[in-house]
Amino acid sequence: EIVEELIQFFTSSTLLSGKKVLITAGGTQEPLDPVRYLGNRSSGRMGYAIAQACQEAGAETILVSAPTDLPIPKGVKRISVMTAQEMHDVVLEEFPKMDVIVKAAAVADYRPKENASQKIKKQGTSLWVELVPNPDILAELGKIKSKQILVGFAAETENLIDYAQEKMRRKNVDMLVANDVTRQGSGFGSLTNIVSFLFPDGRRIDLPQMNKLEVARHLRDKIAELLGVTKEDV
Amino acid sequence: EIVEELIQFFTSSTLLSGKKVLITAGGTQEPLDPVRYLGNRSSGRMGYAIAQACQEAGAETILVSAPTDLPIPKGVKRISVMTAQEMHDVVLEEFPKMDVIVKAAAVADYRPKENASQKIKKQGTSLWVELVPNPDILAELGKIKSKQILVGFAAETENLIDYAQEKMRRKNVDMLVANDVTRQGSGFGSLTNIVSFLFPDGRRIDLPQMNKLEVARHLRDKIAELLGVTKEDV
Repeated sequence: EIVEELIQFFTSSTLLSGKKVLITAGGTQEPLDPVRYLGNRSSGRMGYAIAQACQEAGAETILVSAPTDLPIPKGVKRISVMTAQEMHDVVLEEFPKMDVIVKAAAVADYRPKENASQKIKKQGTSLWVELVPNPDILAELGKIKSKQILVGFAAETENLIDYAQEKMRRKNVDMLVANDVTRQGSGFGSLTNIVSFLFPDGRRIDLPQMNKLEVARHLRDKIAELLGVTKEDV
Repeated sequence: EIVEELIQFFTSSTLLSGKKVLITAGGTQEPLDPVRYLGNRSSGRMGYAIAQACQEAGAETILVSAPTDLPIPKGVKRISVMTAQEMHDVVLEEFPKMDVIVKAAAVADYRPKENASQKIKKQGTSLWVELVPNPDILAELGKIKSKQILVGFAAETENLIDYAQEKMRRKNVDMLVANDVTRQGSGFGSLTNIVSFLFPDGRRIDLPQMNKLEVARHLRDKIAELLGVTKEDV
């Protein structure tokens, strides 16, 4: 364990120095009233691990985080948001200054159209709620990006690789992390993950099950490659 | 701090010995699909603090908890649930064995009628979701209770005391903790709380702002009184 940490330190501590990385994390919450909300299952652990991995490689690291009880990784700047719209606004504002954006958050696709100012009292009958689409942050970034490396996530419950490849093309991302959240040892709440990295040139890397910080360090090293930095240069 | 803990220990450590207490805590999650859910804002901290306060007074303490990252208080048995229906089933099964039930959880009044087996794919248009009423656990317990002391919570955003008194009568509880969640220093996510204790005989005790463990210990002492035990007896 200690040996691994030392190797990690000496090979990676300056890999991303001078680079600005923004990571989104956690599941956004879309209020229906002051008490109820529409949520997305995400512990935030994958995003927080990526922030830690980038920070330890010398990057200036910003975490745009939906509500979670996770501690802020050392040296990372955290900006807290609640809804997809708030996350959208913060990310779009920070975007021009960034070299890398990793969209690890589970962003609500929909929000309740009405957000009641007082708690809705219970009635004995059904309640119909209208949900309206949220802004698609990743697609917007894919349209406006210039020098930035854009990394997306696809958390799916079926047809993982097909959906993920289609998402990568449609949203113009440089790398996509595909995650079958129905697999044992992967996805929401799990301490480990089983993911594949997909690239627009057709390359695909399947990682075995590993803890989220190990996945994060692999991801961080691939980002460095995409930026044209390799461990040999450091 | 240490002196307070010692006083606490010597005056309270056997106050509830031989009593069985069940506390519900956290916000239930009602799935819309494997990724999305309808949630309730609750950190679970108030319920976990009550469990700790009862356990340190010698009670056999069970915590029926919706998802949260909080650590289990020492000596407390935790049963984890996700939905209101699951919480209902566990509480009803444990109820006959209990002396005291404290319903501190934020239980979803409604759940999505359909729980899709696969993640719902995003469409460009509105989505209408039908919500149906969940079982009312507190009202059911109020109907069937015999010897048990039943403590409810009312988290409101307006007309707090009126709603709370009406709720106390309608649900046949022995004590109600009223909590205006819109006040600074109170409610969801806060480390402190500002609550009132209401009783069916019309008594009302307004507590000043204090941390949740202090609120929990006051509540625990009132429960002991309702059970006919006072600190002088111990």
